[in-house]
Amino acid sequence: MSNTTQYKLVYFNLRTLGEPIRMLFKYMQIQFEDVRIDPAEWQGQVRTSCKWLKVPELHTTDSNGKTYCLTQTSAICRYLANSYPTFELMPTDPLDQARCDMIVDAVQDFRMRMKPYIVAKYFDPEGCSKLSQLKKELLDDEFWIYLKNMDQILEEERGDFICGEKVRWADFFLANFTAIWEEIFDDENLLKAYENLKKQQQAVESLPKIQEWIKQREYTKI
Amino acid sequence: MSNTTQYKLVYFNLRTLGEPIRMLFKYMQIQFEDVRIDPAEWQGQVRTSCKWLKVPELHTTDSNGKTYCLTQTSAICRYLANSYPTFELMPTDPLDQARCDMIVDAVQDFRMRMKPYIVAKYFDPEGCSKLSQLKKELLDDEFWIYLKNMDQILEEERGDFICGEKVRWADFFLANFTAIWEEIFDDENLLKAYENLKKQQQAVESLPKIQEWIKQREYTKI
Repeated sequence: MSNTTQYKLVYFNLRTLGEPIRMLFKYMQIQFEDVRIDPAEWQGQVRTSCKWLKVPELHTTDSNGKTYCLTQTSAICRYLANSYPTFELMPTDPLDQARCDMIVDAVQDFRMRMKPYIVAKYFDPEGCSKLSQLKKELLDDEFWIYLKNMDQILEEERGDFICGEKVRWADFFLANFTAIWEEIFDDENLLKAYENLKKQQQAVESLPKIQEWIKQREYTKI
Repeated sequence: MSNTTQYKLVYFNLRTLGEPIRMLFKYMQIQFEDVRIDPAEWQGQVRTSCKWLKVPELHTTDSNGKTYCLTQTSAICRYLANSYPTFELMPTDPLDQARCDMIVDAVQDFRMRMKPYIVAKYFDPEGCSKLSQLKKELLDDEFWIYLKNMDQILEEERGDFICGEKVRWADFFLANFTAIWEEIFDDENLLKAYENLKKQQQAVESLPKIQEWIKQREYTKI
């Protein structure tokens, strides 16, 4: 992977699945074109112009002009982590890699279950009436199990990050989503009982390059 | 990772998300306890005995008696591939890793969309009436895009497998699901226009250890 590779990230003007990739670029100080689609424009031509009919997409152009189109957030994050090994964002220990993978996939699982709540809250003008019931269903069941287990993985490591003292690719992913969850459930104490998760989020947000980026980026609700 | 590590895989008596892990064990000739839950027993105590309230779970016990519980199919597959590097199941090239990751995540995406169809077909006594409509919805839209893009990734490599001539961890995952798709859509020509996908499936099924396992395993519908 040469330093002359050019990157174009295509995603909505939201944090959700684009932000972990943006954070990785910002952390490594790698230039990228940050193309943001208005969700209102998503259907029709914009959607069909995407190879997999979905975003994020990362378009790469290497120094020979060869292009490639990558899809899937976690695949793109791993690709960037593997492409710049000097940052040590991909753990070498198999169990550490599994810790990253399990947390990212668990967040993705929970995100799928959360979809009706997010649609009702942000995209459905009549959604408000269903909101408290949907929230109750989410919070009463799996959500605490997910938070507890992720907190326990962090506890095992006794460091601020998923795999201990060193930030890894999945840390950006996790911190992005715990911050979003606090906001969408309107509960700044959501992580109160999960100290390791809160500490992890703060540790990522305190990395100088990330701190700078958070100050600079346009705020979006999700 | 020592050869004396003991493994216990807990999953339903189905192929779906357990089978790629079973295939990896069989391919590498590593012993594991293959615990199979009857889906009818899933609710209640069996479900709550699982740490994340879900399966597959892989329980490992190392030579010092230290245990660990892993979750998420693709995390478990990567963990096994990374734990036994002599089999070269994890590619070293970042783009090859991304090819594996993108295909596995795309299959997972499509699996989520397929859920209503699978529930109607196998788990809902009154589901038959909805079946053809659900199938039409699935096949009319994204499915062909997914198949076409996965086929194209295989085409790029001009080998039988995702990353060319060498079988990788994600090949077991992909071949398992294309075989299941042919069965659940009752269409043995489903992959007819996607030659590279069919060749990949046959190449995985022709690996001597996998061929042996397919003959020996109990048949399950999904």
